[in-house]
Amino acid sequence: MRYCPQCGHTVNMVIPAGDNRIRPVCPSCDYIDYDNPRLITGTIPLYKGKILLCRRNIEPRLGFWTLPAGFMENQETTSEGALRETLEESGSVAICKQAFSMISIPRINQVHLFYLAELEKDDFRPTEESSEVALFGLDEIPWDELAFSSVTKTIEFFIADHEKGRYGFHEDTIHFNTVSK
Amino acid sequence: MRYCPQCGHTVNMVIPAGDNRIRPVCPSCDYIDYDNPRLITGTIPLYKGKILLCRRNIEPRLGFWTLPAGFMENQETTSEGALRETLEESGSVAICKQAFSMISIPRINQVHLFYLAELEKDDFRPTEESSEVALFGLDEIPWDELAFSSVTKTIEFFIADHEKGRYGFHEDTIHFNTVSK
Repeated sequence: MRYCPQCGHTVNMVIPAGDNRIRPVCPSCDYIDYDNPRLITGTIPLYKGKILLCRRNIEPRLGFWTLPAGFMENQETTSEGALRETLEESGSVAICKQAFSMISIPRINQVHLFYLAELEKDDFRPTEESSEVALFGLDEIPWDELAFSSVTKTIEFFIADHEKGRYGFHEDTIHFNTVSK
Repeated sequence: MRYCPQCGHTVNMVIPAGDNRIRPVCPSCDYIDYDNPRLITGTIPLYKGKILLCRRNIEPRLGFWTLPAGFMENQETTSEGALRETLEESGSVAICKQAFSMISIPRINQVHLFYLAELEKDDFRPTEESSEVALFGLDEIPWDELAFSSVTKTIEFFIADHEKGRYGFHEDTIHFNTVSK
């Protein structure tokens, strides 16, 4: 940030009064810019024991498979964001069953949150964001073609819990770049 | 936002290509501003079965009691943010035991996330942000003087789980303004 979004003046990078971090501060109108981590919300969409995956039609990781997920938007809850992304990326209507995984990725200032969700019916389709959408059995997961580490971890947690017959809430941290795995 | 933070030009409020929401877009440098919900991270700091609360020394809700919590910052994980806020607001060093509650407040574009945490020792103090810091037994909670609905809900969840003898993960939504309750 070089210019104040409120008044257009050039900003200074300083520690605001009472704060302990350097932030863009406007010397003209006193605007302080707070840049905070973003939430990515998505689902593990389940249908008859299979997981719905989307083949990415957009960068990053174009051509790789992902769970449907994306940036949570203002005015929605975490589960509403997860279901909106599921609809946008896979054309499917799902129902959230429980929050399942929450993965911090401090290097890129993101927190990825996935819900266990169920599809009401076998109804999904390619979308602008997904060149292909398909159900995978737990022994059919395309591990080498998954788009992001948070997706890999979440599916691993799911399979482990499935084998135990009990689904918990899983928290983890990824310290490397998700895009390059 | 009226001015582009990258180039200082006035922005237009339009739906960017491939998007479906109105955002500030710069006609000069093509910068798009994405404003997303923020995560507030905090703890239920426990010591010998009591909960540490902080009496707010800052607005909003100055003078009311709260669990220590605040905006998650870039470059940290959710639990690191929760422990940093606990230290900043109460002067106490805690250890996160588990993620406990996650409360969406869509009206103010926030998600509040609280961890169960334990204090290693009986060591806390007033801070710039807290005029008073004290331990409360579960039958001593100052319900009518709690600062935020998310704090009230989280302590209610805690007491219910405590009575069951098993601590889960709780998700909820608050549809009204937390400040005015």
